[in-house]
Parts: sequence; structure tokens; C-alpha cells
Amino acid sequence: MTLATSLSTPAAASDLGRAAEPVSLAERYRTVRTATEQLCTPLHTEDYVVSSMPDVSPTKWHLAHTSWFFETFALAPFAEHYRPLNPKYAFLFNSYYVQAGERHCRAQRGLVTRPTVAEVYEYRAHVDAQLQPLLAQVDDDPQHPAREVLELGLHHEQQHQELLLTDIKHVFWSNPMRPAYRADRRVSSVPAPQGWTRVDGGVRDIGYEGSAFHFDNEGPRHRVFVQPSALAHRLTTNGEYLEFIADGGYRRPELWLSRGWATVREHDWRAPLYWESVNGAWHEFTLAGTGPLDPHAPVTHVSYFEADAYARWAGKRLPTEAEWEVVARTQPLAGRFVDAGVLHPHSDGASGLQQLFGDVWQWTQSAYLAYPGYRASAGALGEYNGKWMSDQWVLRGASCATPASHARVTYRNFFPSDARWQFTGIRLAHDVPEGEA
Amino acid sequence: MTLATSLSTPAAASDLGRAAEPVSLAERYRTVRTATEQLCTPLHTEDYVVSSMPDVSPTKWHLAHTSWFFETFALAPFAEHYRPLNPKYAFLFNSYYVQAGERHCRAQRGLVTRPTVAEVYEYRAHVDAQLQPLLAQVDDDPQHPAREVLELGLHHEQQHQELLLTDIKHVFWSNPMRPAYRADRRVSSVPAPQGWTRVDGGVRDIGYEGSAFHFDNEGPRHRVFVQPSALAHRLTTNGEYLEFIADGGYRRPELWLSRGWATVREHDWRAPLYWESVNGAWHEFTLAGTGPLDPHAPVTHVSYFEADAYARWAGKRLPTEAEWEVVARTQPLAGRFVDAGVLHPHSDGASGLQQLFGDVWQWTQSAYLAYPGYRASAGALGEYNGKWMSDQWVLRGASCATPASHARVTYRNFFPSDARWQFTGIRLAHDVPEGEA
Amino acid sequence: MTLATSLSTPAAASDLGRAAEPVSLAERYRTVRTATEQLCTPLHTEDYVVSSMPDVSPTKWHLAHTSWFFETFALAPFAEHYRPLNPKYAFLFNSYYVQAGERHCRAQRGLVTRPTVAEVYEYRAHVDAQLQPLLAQVDDDPQHPAREVLELGLHHEQQHQELLLTDIKHVFWSNPMRPAYRADRRVSSVPAPQGWTRVDGGVRDIGYEGSAFHFDNEGPRHRVFVQPSALAHRLTTNGEYLEFIADGGYRRPELWLSRGWATVREHDWRAPLYWESVNGAWHEFTLAGTGPLDPHAPVTHVSYFEADAYARWAGKRLPTEAEWEVVARTQPLAGRFVDAGVLHPHSDGASGLQQLFGDVWQWTQSAYLAYPGYRASAGALGEYNGKWMSDQWVLRGASCATPASHARVTYRNFFPSDARWQFTGIRLAHDVPEGEA
Amino acid sequence: MTLATSLSTPAAASDLGRAAEPVSLAERYRTVRTATEQLCTPLHTEDYVVSSMPDVSPTKWHLAHTSWFFETFALAPFAEHYRPLNPKYAFLFNSYYVQAGERHCRAQRGLVTRPTVAEVYEYRAHVDAQLQPLLAQVDDDPQHPAREVLELGLHHEQQHQELLLTDIKHVFWSNPMRPAYRADRRVSSVPAPQGWTRVDGGVRDIGYEGSAFHFDNEGPRHRVFVQPSALAHRLTTNGEYLEFIADGGYRRPELWLSRGWATVREHDWRAPLYWESVNGAWHEFTLAGTGPLDPHAPVTHVSYFEADAYARWAGKRLPTEAEWEVVARTQPLAGRFVDAGVLHPHSDGASGLQQLFGDVWQWTQSAYLAYPGYRASAGALGEYNGKWMSDQWVLRGASCATPASHARVTYRNFFPSDARWQFTGIRLAHDVPEGEA
Repeated sequence: MTLATSLSTPAAASDLGRAAEPVSLAERYRTVRTATEQLCTPLHTEDYVVSSMPDVSPTKWHLAHTSWFFETFALAPFAEHYRPLNPKYAFLFNSYYVQAGERHCRAQRGLVTRPTVAEVYEYRAHVDAQLQPLLAQVDDDPQHPAREVLELGLHHEQQHQELLLTDIKHVFWSNPMRPAYRADRRVSSVPAPQGWTRVDGGVRDIGYEGSAFHFDNEGPRHRVFVQPSALAHRLTTNGEYLEFIADGGYRRPELWLSRGWATVREHDWRAPLYWESVNGAWHEFTLAGTGPLDPHAPVTHVSYFEADAYARWAGKRLPTEAEWEVVARTQPLAGRFVDAGVLHPHSDGASGLQQLFGDVWQWTQSAYLAYPGYRASAGALGEYNGKWMSDQWVLRGASCATPASHARVTYRNFFPSDARWQFTGIRLAHDVPEGEA
Repeated sequence: MTLATSLSTPAAASDLGRAAEPVSLAERYRTVRTATEQLCTPLHTEDYVVSSMPDVSPTKWHLAHTSWFFETFALAPFAEHYRPLNPKYAFLFNSYYVQAGERHCRAQRGLVTRPTVAEVYEYRAHVDAQLQPLLAQVDDDPQHPAREVLELGLHHEQQHQELLLTDIKHVFWSNPMRPAYRADRRVSSVPAPQGWTRVDGGVRDIGYEGSAFHFDNEGPRHRVFVQPSALAHRLTTNGEYLEFIADGGYRRPELWLSRGWATVREHDWRAPLYWESVNGAWHEFTLAGTGPLDPHAPVTHVSYFEADAYARWAGKRLPTEAEWEVVARTQPLAGRFVDAGVLHPHSDGASGLQQLFGDVWQWTQSAYLAYPGYRASAGALGEYNGKWMSDQWVLRGASCATPASHARVTYRNFFPSDARWQFTGIRLAHDVPEGEA
Repeated sequence: MTLATSLSTPAAASDLGRAAEPVSLAERYRTVRTATEQLCTPLHTEDYVVSSMPDVSPTKWHLAHTSWFFETFALAPFAEHYRPLNPKYAFLFNSYYVQAGERHCRAQRGLVTRPTVAEVYEYRAHVDAQLQPLLAQVDDDPQHPAREVLELGLHHEQQHQELLLTDIKHVFWSNPMRPAYRADRRVSSVPAPQGWTRVDGGVRDIGYEGSAFHFDNEGPRHRVFVQPSALAHRLTTNGEYLEFIADGGYRRPELWLSRGWATVREHDWRAPLYWESVNGAWHEFTLAGTGPLDPHAPVTHVSYFEADAYARWAGKRLPTEAEWEVVARTQPLAGRFVDAGVLHPHSDGASGLQQLFGDVWQWTQSAYLAYPGYRASAGALGEYNGKWMSDQWVLRGASCATPASHARVTYRNFFPSDARWQFTGIRLAHDVPEGEA
Repeated sequence: MTLATSLSTPAAASDLGRAAEPVSLAERYRTVRTATEQLCTPLHTEDYVVSSMPDVSPTKWHLAHTSWFFETFALAPFAEHYRPLNPKYAFLFNSYYVQAGERHCRAQRGLVTRPTVAEVYEYRAHVDAQLQPLLAQVDDDPQHPAREVLELGLHHEQQHQELLLTDIKHVFWSNPMRPAYRADRRVSSVPAPQGWTRVDGGVRDIGYEGSAFHFDNEGPRHRVFVQPSALAHRLTTNGEYLEFIADGGYRRPELWLSRGWATVREHDWRAPLYWESVNGAWHEFTLAGTGPLDPHAPVTHVSYFEADAYARWAGKRLPTEAEWEVVARTQPLAGRFVDAGVLHPHSDGASGLQQLFGDVWQWTQSAYLAYPGYRASAGALGEYNGKWMSDQWVLRGASCATPASHARVTYRNFFPSDARWQFTGIRLAHDVPEGEA
């Protein structure tokens, strides 16, 4: 994958350079908010407006909703005499926080032409300006009650940076003109032969423990029993996935979960999302437009159903999230990103797990459920993670569209079985018989 | 209704002033094309992109599709060496002409952000420039084979001017911000008491006959037997329609056609589209935003089902299209608009039929079917009218959004039973016993 | 078509034999009710229960609903001290009479296992027994106020006899076992070459006038202007329709109405309902099971869309209902069935129109609308015909499943554009130039 | 719950009486097959035919499908010269075994009137007769290769016994006549106050290990880490659930998972399935018809969403399947049903867990996933359990409709989050702080 460098370099590089230096909240706020707007540089006004399917939000909405989040959860409770720019925005730009009031129907986000893009940028500027005093207060007072929600707001905005990219990719792909978001298309080099890292069976601790930012669903840290197993050193490539297709992968029901097979039939899936056959040769739509499929790049835009079927075809399985976390913690750079959200995506040593962060999210075979002892926060912010804990799977790692400072070894991303528009891919695993050396 | 003057005045006024003077096709082309773009003056870029329901096309699409029409049916066959600006536009901007090639799915028109609005205006300019030589040739040669399709193209564009307005009205209404297209809201004066004009029974001729432009569905002229009847002098007003609502009109199944009642129940209709009750008082969303309902204005945005139910409640019925045309031809100004498409919307004499043109389209109880002897043209242009002749009703007259030079006494507009987003209203009729004086 | 003789012989033959003799209402009641039950002779209990699509009602429901009709509209108002057998039946067996009270959802008719078939027969017997005194009173008193509704009830039951057959045909066809309703399959003889009967243009009277039973939608008798035209002597055959298919009829959008083409694509229509290609040879499912297509039989189970497309392909059109009625009245046997509902389906002279009644209903190009001066009755019975007057077409004649005594030259059957499960077919027409001899 | 005794007594009692005695396969086959047919005793022919929603299969289909299972997986491979009674049955009565060939669409199971009920019983008799020699061979040869599939067929049929009851309950409830399956309605006695049994944290073994019959998804036996927790002694009652409703349970989004809240809104859920308010008092539809809600009976027909919301409201949570199994194994009677499928539903001691088996299935908070090392069998039988391992939850225990000999402490039932037509209920759990005594 080649997005990571071009997209997240500015933020990532600077973060990496001074991982140990404390950065003020006000400065980080400015960095994150600016990064969001930089992602929009290649867009025309028209591109901001549209939602190409129910999962996809308009760029304009992402810009506004992330501001609404700060307005609702930081300005309203903590800023004195805060007056909203427009009271109707609270209705328009609430996503799913039922306890934060009535909200606009998700399905109609793409029908709203006003506020205009310019007005949305004014809204951002308004929120930014109003937040400055509060940010200063919080930087002065480590115990300030607004600190937590402001941190959350930054990570929330980083999540929407990734969504903004995956959503605009879908919008562009839905257009028969197939416009490109960026010009350059890179090609991966030949990957090393697959290797396997052993996970010893036994009781292990997983989950976040520490004082830095993390989402509530990453904790509490707790003990689990991990089976003896082994995880693939690198991600499954397009070339490997092509063998699955060539072997009838999409036509053999015995490889699929029942709901997966129904989905394949209903939507006539024959390849990952964004693949298309042009004159008999596979091409792939990327943010750089449509081009020949890169056989060495990690396969992406596959659903859980496809990842699971591929693993079954390969005689392997997907890892559990515990296996993934246990191994990832042992990698050379783990210490750098366990707490600080700092990582170098492509520096994995050849002998260990590569491509953990910065290429594609990795489906696990773990359902997205509460960790033992998990309690959602009270109030609307408690809806952030907890209420989604049904009918989804955990994905681990981070993708090429994830801001570098947003990744963590305990991070739990989650999507339903049939979601394909995210940068989601495959790392294989397999069992190791108990007594095996 | 108050739109007519403000919207169509420029074109209408000039046309009216020199109805008898011949105007060159090139000049009329310029006038019509300019009028379309003038309608867009109040819009922001974002407003051009969106489709708020399947019936509604984005403004951008209207601008492009009307150009595609000239490109496909005039430039391609008649202009030497014509090169399209972008070959993909033929796919994107074909509406429903199956014989003109594959086309983009209607439901996805609102998802296409590129070409941008600026690029669409370039497309218009390209087509305009390329057409100039052909327009000159046709103005020099009364028998030029391209004349007919160029005339059709102008009337096609005028139809889209009306649609552009009704569509943007729906887009604005779908937005919780409820933006306004124009600033001024006018109020109607108290209408005269209702009167009735008698239609004598007997064999009459209806349908277009002459050499000026008309759509193929307006002919052939043919004989029909008209029953003795009477038509209302003026349109049903909001105030009169309110009595129907107050009398339980939307809650009494015996007043409704079966499919109409099912529609009322399914969509929970309680009033015309765009009406809403604010603190117990009826308001109406118009192109000038939301304001108190004007009781003296003609009721509009009612479906056939509602028009029919209202008429039944009132002890009347809707007119047939033959009755409408027979009476309309006898009005003082009929001579001016029978052939030339010229009319003065508000000059009807007090003693005769008023509000025939320029307020709202009038539902008739005539199904939209072929006149005896009708034959659709060969080729893609034959799809213009003929293939819609099922499951729709004829509407007569013209609305406040209809360009004045586009109205004709033989004009047959048509919409399905449940359509409400057009400016559609009610003129009542009733039977007259055979022997009655 | 070959159903007519076998299905309706008992009633038809006796009626025909003594067309002129008065038959008591009580006797006719017994005849009609018995005929309904005779239609069920080939059924097993399971067959009575199922609805294979929303248009199809279970046999059990037809048996009960026709009894409910007599109970609700005759026994309840006219029989002293009538006690319903089960008060819940009023809810279960009301079809669409909104004014007669709440009713069971049509879509769920096929889910109701109780009352059992035996209990439904008891319900019929109960209604029959309770009606005897009233029938006797009405036979004694020509002015009895219940006479009209009892007559209506008999014709209503005859309509359901036809529906019972078309519905059970669909139920059987929906079963992969493809059971047969009856054993014998007949084959048509070679039809005569097509001929044409001229209709002179001019003012004509159509619609029922007289004192015998007729539905309210058949009147009032009124004047219409009929264009000069010609009607085909006989119905279009399967063999002729095969030529349309072979010529790409289902693949050529230019032959179809717009909604028709959309329907063809959506449902992948390639032939009439019940046709299927077995090893490359067309077969047809009939009440006698699946067998080779009979090329000489009238094509049936075609929608309006298909009838219209076929006519366009053939360079003809469908007749108007006025043309059909005007010509049909001039046929030799017209006098016998104008008033009395008596006809001999297969006795048409070779020189005139054949197959008017007793083979398939004939789609006309007339929308199903009120005749001038039509008023629906007050109350629930007014819902019988009037509320269906939108989005449907008139069919004329009668089919092989229509009881012989139920056909009339003024009869107006009606179905929507895409309905195919009735015995519906094609009689062509064409215009005749005004001055042509 | 009161069904268990009346429904499953014959099989259960006899099994219980001679749990230690070996019973021949032939005898068990006869017992199970007879029990299925005994369940149909209260039904009329019409009741066998209908499917009231997609999850519900007709009784007739259950009777046939269980026979098809033996025919396909035992007779076809193991019986010499086996000739199917009707080759089309293989298509009609395959449920979801894609590898066993094409199959009839599930949604249309309720539309098939033939084969009749009598013919389905003949099919059962045919399969029974043909199986006798094979059953004798297997009883003579402990290593016979057909033994496993015959055992599986018996347990498969027992699963369908439960489904047959839950399905016919839904069919009867869908009927406005609300027929009853059985006459007697029992009332529960006042339950003991709730108590809690402690689960010590640590590594435990769960899953089946042994040589008796079990489904493949119950193994392999493996280690898990169980958190310290406590499980409720008894099930949540209707009376306790009423408090949740009274406290606004169905109106407070903060209590619900996001998809759960969407489901509540979409279907307007206000109480468990089958509850209805009659004149302000809660009633419940049971197999004995509609009657007043029994406040002491375990709440049932609640979805996972409702069980989860109730637990959150109560300040508790649902147990994991590991917690459930670990505790259940320690109960006095565990030894009797661990391997042999033998249990006494109502004999739980007052001090331990009660109502484990024989009342309602108990939702756990464990997603239905493969145990470590699980491999589905090859071929069509591998589809039995494995392909359902997504988007479902594990339920533990057994219900009043489960045949007594079918329950096991390792049994893993599974249903999606919104399923309510099964006998599903609630046993609460809560965390116990690590160091707590």
C-alpha cells in the first residue's frame, strides 16, 4: 500500500520526530484540525456534497460533524456563554448520539446543499476560535475536566480523517467518469516469502493499561487464555488472492459462511470491491484512479466474509484479536506505540511481523464484544463505542489512511461482516498442536 | 400564484411584445438557453449537485442534459466533423432515450460530482458555439432538415426550465435549513366568487392542427363527442381546499380512489405537499421559503388522487381534456396562443375562464393516451412522448413555472396519479343534464 | 381455448337451453352456489389454504368471502334476527369494503389455517340456510328491496368463480411438483386466416341500458365518437405470438411502453406467463399440467404491456372499448346476450367476429374510467367498481373461465398494465383512413 | 414454564427411567420418529401447510425434511439399491445443504400444497421401512460407518421437534382467530428470591469430550480463562420484566445496543413477542391460546437485544457461555446429562442453579464462533453447524419444547440478535471484583 506516506506524512513525520517531547493540546488541536482540511485540498466543491451509499457520508458532513463534536461536548458544557453559530447545526451534524438530541436521518446526509462548503469552513473556524481559551486553560491545568473530551475529540477527528478518505474514494468510484483524488500511483515491490511467528499458549494479558489516551473499548486490561498458534509475517497479497479467485473461490459455497455465500450471490461478488476486469485483465480503482492490479500489494477492500473464505481455502484461519495483540506487543517497535500512538509503519524487521500498521486493517475472527469489566461512560459519550457491540468483528492494526499518531497496539476497530469500503485486508494464522515444539 | 411574472418575465414579456414578428431561430436559441442559465442565478454550486428523490434531477444534470439533446439530435447528425467535448457525457446525460444508447441510472444522477458545475457550463458553451453554423443554415433555409429537431430542442429545454424549478424547490424543502430560492413572497387578492361556463354537448374537434411547433402527442386533430357540462371559472383556492381538510377529507376513504386511499395511508398524507402545520397554523413552503398559507392562492402540489377526492367531496368532478380544450379555445385570447405559444397569463376576462395558463397545471380526468391516428416518430425521438402513454393523466393549461412562450391550448402535460412535486392544481367541472337550458 | 366447455357446461348449457324462461332467484342462487363448490372438486384440503402471490387468494377465502358478501349485504340488513355464525368472520372475509369495517390484511390471507375448509363449508351452509326465507320473499315480491343486492351477490360469486380458477392455476404453477387441476388436455384446430370487420366512424351509443342485471360501471348508456377502424375476426394465436418472440419482441425497447420495458427488464420476461422452454421447445402450464405449446390456441396470460407491444410489432393497435362494443353488438347472437347474459361462446359465424366470449379476455386501449354521468352507489357497495377507476385498462369479452351466464356485451373487466395471471389475450385493430371505402 | 411435562413426557420419562440401560438404535429411531408425529396430533390438515414468516417452516415441511435427511445421508449412501419415493422431494425438502444439491427457496416453503399431508406421511413411512435393515446392521456392528449419521439424524429430528412447536405457535398467533394447540394452561408458583452462585476466576476446560453423541460445534474441549463472576440461581420472571417495561425500558435508548434500538423503533416493540395488552392488562399468547400473563413464569420470547437491555437496566449482564457451562457442570445432576443427554428438568436443588434445562433457552453474551481447533466435517454434513458462525449468539440450556433426551451441558444453540419466536429467556450474571471473597 502506498497511501500512508503521501497522506499522513506531515502529521506522522512530525509526530515521529518528537515522540518523546510533550506537545501542548492547543498545538495538537491545530495540527489535527489542519490535517483534516489538508485532506480536502484535491476536492472540488461538488465533491463535498454527495453520499454514494448509506455508509458513506459527504466530506462536508465530516468537516461539520467533527466540529459539532467539539461544540457539543466541549464548548457547550465548558465554555462560558458559548453561543452556537447556528442552532440548526446541532440537528444536522449529530451522527448517532441519541442522548445528544434529535438528529438528521443518516440516509439524507447527501441531500443537504446548505450550509455550503464555505459556510461549513466558517463553522469550523468559529468552533476553532471559540475553543482557544478552553484549550489554553486545559494546557495550564492538568486536572481540567475538559481535558478528556478534548483528547477524545482529536481522536474522533482522526477517525473521520480516515472515513473521509474511504468515503471520497467510494464517491469517486461511483462516478462513471472515475475521477482521481491524487495523481501518483505507486507499485509495490516483490514481498518476501511468507513466514510465521509462533504464539505460545497460556494465560496472557491484553487490553490497554496506562494513562495516555485510549478508547474505552480497549480496556480494561484483563487475562485471556491464548491457544498455541502462529501468525503470518506479512499480509496476503493481491497475487495470492488472485489464486483464490482462479480456483473458483467465489463459486464454491463450501468455502463460505452461510450469510457470506448469500451475500456473494445477492451482489454477484466476484472480486474485492474496486476491482474490475478490463479486457480480461484485472484492474483496481484507487485514489489515483483506475490502473492495473498490483500483484504485490496487500489485498484490500475485502469483507470479513471474503477474508474468512480465503483463509479457509488456504487451509488457515484468521487470527483472534488476542493472538494478534500478544504477538504485536513483542515486535521491536511495540514500545513506541503502545502508549504514545507513535509508530513507523514500514520499519518492521524482516524476521518478525511486518505490515502491522499503515497498510490495511486486519480482520480477526473475534466478535466485537465488551472486554470483561467494561463499562460504557454515562451520557451521550457512552454511545461512542459500547452500543455497537453486536454483529461486528474486530479489526486490528491500522491502514494506509489511518493517521500515524492514531494507531495503537490495543486499538479495536470494528465493522460488520459485509463491509468492504474500508481499507481492510488479511493476515493469516493457524493452530499449532499443543505439544509441538 | 406569483411565480410567473418574476420567473419568466424577460422571455415572456419580449415574446408578447412582438408576437407577430418573426424571430430567427438563432435568436430564439440564444434567448431560451440564456433563460435556463438565468434560472440558476440564485444557486450555489452545492445546490446543483443533489437529487432529493427519484423524480428530481440535479440542476447540473438539467443544464447538461438539455445540451446533450442538441448534441445528440442536431450536432451529431447535421454538423460536419462534430467532435463531442467528452464522449462519456453521452452516457451520463442521456435521460431515457433507449435507442440513443446506454445511459446512466436515473437513481444515481445525484451521486455524480464530476463534471463540475463549471465544466457543465463549458459543455453548454461548447454546444452553443458548435451549433451556430447550423442555426445560421437553418435560418437561411426554411426546408432545412435540422429545423424540426432544433425547434424540438428549444421546447425540450423549456420543459426542463420548469422541471429545474420544481426540482430545486424539492431539494430546498428536503433540507432542514429550508433555504429560499428567492426573496419576495407575494399574496393573492381575494378571488371572485366561483362561476361556471357551459360546454354544449356534441361532436367537436380537438388537437393541434397547423404548421407551428407542437409536440406529436397534441395531434392528430380529431373528432370527439363532448357531453354537456360546465367548467369552473377559476381554480380551487387554498382556502376552499382547507374546508375539505377540515371536513375530514384525508380521513374518509369513501372520498378516494382505492389506490389513492392506500397512498394516503402509506405516506400519511394530511395536506398538499409543502404544507406544514406550525403551532397549529398552516404554512406553506414556496421558493421564497416557508410562510403562512395564502388562502386566496390556487391550491397546488396536489396529486391526481387529491384532486379527484376534493372534486368528489365538492359534489363535482374534474374536467375531461376535451371539455377543457373546447372551452379554452373560446376564450378571448385563444387566438393568440393556439398557434404561436403566446399568451398573457392574467388577462382573462371576468366573465370567462380565468387562470387557464400561468398559475397551476390542471388535472383532467382523461388518461394520457394516444389520440386516434397518432404515430410516434421513428428512432430515438419517437420516445419523447409516445412511450409514456400508460398509467398517467393529462394535465392542461400551464403553471407559474412554465415559460410563457411554451404554453398552448392543445398542450398535453402528463403525470402519474401520485405525483405532487409539480405545480398541479384543480379546476372543477360538472355534468349538465342533456335537455337543460 | 378449451376450458369453457368443461368448466362451465352445467350452468351454461342449462341457461342456454331456456334462456327465455324465467328462473326463480332461489333456483339461480342454488345453481350459482353449487357451481362454486363444484369447481373445488379436484382440490385437496391443502390446496384451499395457500396464496402464491399478493393477487392470489386462497380457495378457502373465495368460498368464505362470497358467503360473507351475502351475509353482510343481504342477511344483516334484510333478515330478521340474523346472528352471524362467527363474528370474527366479518373481519377475516371482508375483501376491500372499507366502509363495511376493518378487515384482514390481504397479504396475510394465505397464512390463516382456521377456520378449516370444513368450517368454511359449514359457513356457506349456514348462510345458504339463513337466506332461504329472504330468497322466497324476494321471489314473491318483485319490488323487494333486497332483490338488487341478491342479484349482485350472484354475479359477485360468479366473478370469484373465475378468480378461484385463475388463482388455483397460479398456486399449482408455483409448486415445483406442478400438479394438475384436471386431466384432459385439448388441442385447438387450425384457425382460419385472419379477417377484418370494418367499424364505420361516427357517433354511437355504448353502455348498458335496460332492466336486467348489470354492474354500475356498464352505464349510463351514452354517445361516443368512434373513429373509422377495423377489428380482427379472431384472436391472436400462440403461433403468431411466437413470431413476435422470434423477431426479438422481448429484446427491442422500441416496441414497448416505457413502464412496460422496465417491467420486462425487472422480471426478465421472455414469454407469456406459464410458458417455459423445455429442451428448447416451448411448453405451457395449463390447468391440465405442463405440455407442449398449442400453436393454434389464442395466446393468453399476456399483460397489457405485452399486448400493446405485440400490436405495435404487428403494425396494428388494440381496439378501444367503444369499437369493440359497437362491432360486437352487430354480431348474429348479440341479441341473445345483450340483456340476458346468455351466449353461445363458439357459434360465431365465419364471416364475423369470432371468439368474442369464452376464450380469453381482450385487452383494449381504453383506460378504465367512469362513463359520463356515472355515479357510484352510496355506502360500501359503492366501492364495488368505482374506486378502481385509475391505472387500469378495460378488457372486453369473457374467458374460458367465465361462467357463461356472466358474460355481457357491455361488460367491462379491468386489470393493471402488468397483470398476467388472468386469461387475457389479444384481438387486434387498425385505423381506416377517413374516406376509405 | 409448563410445556415440558406435557410435550416431552413420553420420551423424557422413559429415557429418564432407564438412563443407564442401552437402547438399540432401531428402538430409539422408532421413539423419536413417533414423538414427532405425536406432536402433530392436535393439528388439522390446513395447519400443516402454512409459513407465517420467513423463519417459520410449515409442519408438513418439518415432517418431510427430517425424512429427507435420513434418505439423503443414510439411505442414499448406505442402503443398497435405494430408490427414492419421488425424486423431486430431494429438491423440495433440502433445507440449506448447498452441497447436497439445488433446493427449493425457503421463502416459498409455505406455498407448496402438494405433496399433501397424507403423502408426506407416506414418505415418512417409506423412509422408515427402507431404513429398518440398515438400523439392524448398525445395531449389530458398533463400527458400522452409518452409525454416526443415523445418530445425527435422530438429534436433527429432535431439533425439528422443537422448531415444529415454535413454528406452529407462530402460525396460530398470526391468525386473528387465535386457535389453541392444547387445552390446558398452567400457572407457575411464586419463585424463590433470586440468589447468586459464584464462579471463581481462572483457567477452565469447556466443551464436549467423550464418546457419546454431540454436535461438532460442542468441541474440541479446550481451556479458557474465566473471570470471577456470579450467575443468577433462577431465570428472570415475567413480573421482573414488567418492571423494566414500567420503567420505560422500551423507550430509553441508553439501555440498548444501537441495532437493538433501531429494531425496537422499526417494529415498534413494546413487550416480548406474544404479549398483548387487553383492556390495559397484559396477556400472553401461549400454545394454550391467549390468557393473562403469568408473573411468576420465566420471561420468554425475548430477543438478545431485549435480554441485553434488560440486564443493563438491572445493573447486571448476561453470562458468557463459559461461565454458564462451568457452573452448570457443578450442579448436582450434571453427571447425568453431561454425556447421556439425560436430565430431570425440575429437580434442581434450591441452593444451586435452577431452571438450567426445560424452561427457556438462556441468551449468553458470547458470539457463536468456532472453538479453538474446530474443523467442520467434509461434505454436505459439514454445513450443519459451521457455516452459521457469524452474526449469532450462543444460547445455553434447553427449553420447555426441547426433548429431554436432547439436552446437554455442552449444547450450543444459536440465534441472531433479533430472533424472538423461540423459547428464549434471561439468566443474569455479574462481575465479581478479583480479590473479593
